[in-house]
Amino acid sequence: MTKYIKYLGGLLLAVIINTTAAQNKIIVFQTDFGLKDGAVSAMKGVAIGVDSSLKLFDLTHEIPAYNIWEAAYRLQQTVSYWPAGTVFVSVVDPGVGTNRKSVVLKTKAGHFIVTPDNGTLTLIAASEGIEAIREIDEAVNRRKGSEQSYTFHGRDVYAYTAAKFAAGKITYEAIGKELPNEVVSIPYQKAILENKKIKGTIAILDVQYGNIWTNIDADIFNQLNVKIGDKLHVVIYQDKIKKYEGFMPYTETFGAVAKGKPLLYLNSLSQVSFALNMDSFSAKHKVYSGSEWRVEITRPE
Amino acid sequence: MTKYIKYLGGLLLAVIINTTAAQNKIIVFQTDFGLKDGAVSAMKGVAIGVDSSLKLFDLTHEIPAYNIWEAAYRLQQTVSYWPAGTVFVSVVDPGVGTNRKSVVLKTKAGHFIVTPDNGTLTLIAASEGIEAIREIDEAVNRRKGSEQSYTFHGRDVYAYTAAKFAAGKITYEAIGKELPNEVVSIPYQKAILENKKIKGTIAILDVQYGNIWTNIDADIFNQLNVKIGDKLHVVIYQDKIKKYEGFMPYTETFGAVAKGKPLLYLNSLSQVSFALNMDSFSAKHKVYSGSEWRVEITRPE
Amino acid sequence: MTKYIKYLGGLLLAVIINTTAAQNKIIVFQTDFGLKDGAVSAMKGVAIGVDSSLKLFDLTHEIPAYNIWEAAYRLQQTVSYWPAGTVFVSVVDPGVGTNRKSVVLKTKAGHFIVTPDNGTLTLIAASEGIEAIREIDEAVNRRKGSEQSYTFHGRDVYAYTAAKFAAGKITYEAIGKELPNEVVSIPYQKAILENKKIKGTIAILDVQYGNIWTNIDADIFNQLNVKIGDKLHVVIYQDKIKKYEGFMPYTETFGAVAKGKPLLYLNSLSQVSFALNMDSFSAKHKVYSGSEWRVEITRPE
Repeated sequence: MTKYIKYLGGLLLAVIINTTAAQNKIIVFQTDFGLKDGAVSAMKGVAIGVDSSLKLFDLTHEIPAYNIWEAAYRLQQTVSYWPAGTVFVSVVDPGVGTNRKSVVLKTKAGHFIVTPDNGTLTLIAASEGIEAIREIDEAVNRRKGSEQSYTFHGRDVYAYTAAKFAAGKITYEAIGKELPNEVVSIPYQKAILENKKIKGTIAILDVQYGNIWTNIDADIFNQLNVKIGDKLHVVIYQDKIKKYEGFMPYTETFGAVAKGKPLLYLNSLSQVSFALNMDSFSAKHKVYSGSEWRVEITRPE
Repeated sequence: MTKYIKYLGGLLLAVIINTTAAQNKIIVFQTDFGLKDGAVSAMKGVAIGVDSSLKLFDLTHEIPAYNIWEAAYRLQQTVSYWPAGTVFVSVVDPGVGTNRKSVVLKTKAGHFIVTPDNGTLTLIAASEGIEAIREIDEAVNRRKGSEQSYTFHGRDVYAYTAAKFAAGKITYEAIGKELPNEVVSIPYQKAILENKKIKGTIAILDVQYGNIWTNIDADIFNQLNVKIGDKLHVVIYQDKIKKYEGFMPYTETFGAVAKGKPLLYLNSLSQVSFALNMDSFSAKHKVYSGSEWRVEITRPE
Repeated sequence: MTKYIKYLGGLLLAVIINTTAAQNKIIVFQTDFGLKDGAVSAMKGVAIGVDSSLKLFDLTHEIPAYNIWEAAYRLQQTVSYWPAGTVFVSVVDPGVGTNRKSVVLKTKAGHFIVTPDNGTLTLIAASEGIEAIREIDEAVNRRKGSEQSYTFHGRDVYAYTAAKFAAGKITYEAIGKELPNEVVSIPYQKAILENKKIKGTIAILDVQYGNIWTNIDADIFNQLNVKIGDKLHVVIYQDKIKKYEGFMPYTETFGAVAKGKPLLYLNSLSQVSFALNMDSFSAKHKVYSGSEWRVEITRPE
């Protein structure tokens, strides 16, 4: 009887210990693989093979091929909405097989990002801060039998290592040696206010709707002392070439302007954005995103 | 020892109570956000942050931007195949920030739909029936720190509230005040039989194959006393303009007609549909869907 | 007290027995339905309705409509990366409603594939081997109330039966009668070495990047005694028409050649593949995949 109770207790304790010792068992995948082939599914199969109680989610697999800037942006856009302990795997890796490092970054808030250190960490390192970085030791943290495979680190190293770590089967230290708190960064125009003019970058398109999202956040924008309904003067450049110039009101809702008219709003990340009500600003004005797309905003007196 | 056993028992009881008090912990998401950015993932992160044992699924995120009719159709097509207690979140919300209401509808069968009440509930309210509707009290049911965000109700209110409710952390009553059993409805031509002629609407395209799905169900169609193999006369109008006229047999299988030939069949929802065997009826005849697309069917004597 | 402990023990034992008696409770879905409508979600709803503890994943839903060859390829590419016991549901079914058989194949390694036997099993049967095949007895293994539905076997028979089986609610034997260990096969050119010339088929495109994947594996390729950096002569035919002829080096990484230049590499399945560094081989040279696309490789002396 006593032994039986001990057995019960041991079982429960095992469950409890296992739960608390592990990360939260959540992995979120991002790639430029698309959803048409079996690559994403193979990654998930490898992860589930490590521990079938892992919970697997997706950020996106529609990063344009080789677009590291966009991979960096999507992480910054999303990571903080997931609970601490979540492990992200980001595989946009044009340099696969070259000497870029495979790393696991821990943010100050306790999220983990498993990725090639090729610029993918540019924005998340700046916004969330680096708690630590470790380089994956591929000699030990690699799917068995995968040594012959030169081109699918995403499955054989990143998904596999993320699964071992998220499942609590290896510690953060066992991932590999610690690196200095620095990441490979893509240069870009930071948001600034200068002589009553705000400058910034078009960080990304809100692709489904064709809205323009800048890297100018509410704190900088508010220094112009703009009220809802005020008109602003907006100029957009691609490198040195002017691509758009116009006036638009600052509004809280798209419906505050007529159909097809432009507006400036703060998006769900509280960053300055431009849109046309019920139409695509990007398609109509041929304005896109990336580090070469700059924007200037002034408030007419 | 006794204390330890009580502790064990308490733990188990907590688990059991938690399980039975909650909904079934399943959330199914539908949006017009597409899968290219981080919006869907941010919604799921917020939900998992409420309770990591929630099970999250997708209906579709490829609703054409702002197309409330299609959002309504996809809910009607899908909801009843999920178990009672499942919570659906549908965010197709061109009026975000205006005064449309945020609601949670409970169907007669016990499914829940969290959505702006902007026409999205048109078809599900008619087909499944309204057990109750409550308006989300956004003062309390809103993600902490999201008060500054004007434009992402999907994440900060809908996903968050759905997660609290699906996880059993708030009751249905705690969502907000009860409303009358009425929803905002989009007008459309209902299916009828009149003088041996069936009239109806092209409710939706079976987009992957280009098949045409009407809102005419088997009960009405069977009143024409058609047998497998019988030819039918079909006319399709966009508003008042005739866009297609032709004859086609009623068949059980696509293979019953030659490659490229038209056929009339009952789809998986037992509704009258038109197709070309191994080709796209929609693309070939430029026939699409929505409330302005009407169809008339007669049986030649 | 004793009774209470027995109750606890019974509960725990029930949990343990339930876990071990079942399959691994994992289902992976593949279809040509796309992600724009509610069909995939309806399938998953039916599966979750059978057992809400099932874990549902996707291979892809973007198989080109009716393309059985590609369905076959995606299974071969992916199945072995999932744990034994995983149940795959593949629904690419142009012959739905005709007399093709609905089967569940068990591979030698213990994976299960639920599918119409229409060629979908061509490659997996060859690569993984057939342990057993059973025909689904649709009289008993069919969602209740679905007898009227002629066209959605994927939901009413395949997803439903897969869920019952994956959940451990029916045994493999209860699926239906055993069939001979043969599948319907699509003819294709197998990879061979003949007079120092390797012949094979373009099995698939790596669609996201436009790379060309053949069915020639490393074992055959290595018989040419090629070293990294060696140039090879490659000719590609569609049926009898030459579509490409050129030289390219065998490399381990894409970055080993200049931007836009061709290379030959072993892909993540260790099969001979062709690519352009940072460009699409398929788009540039109008080379696609399928059984009519043949390739010949020689090593210049």
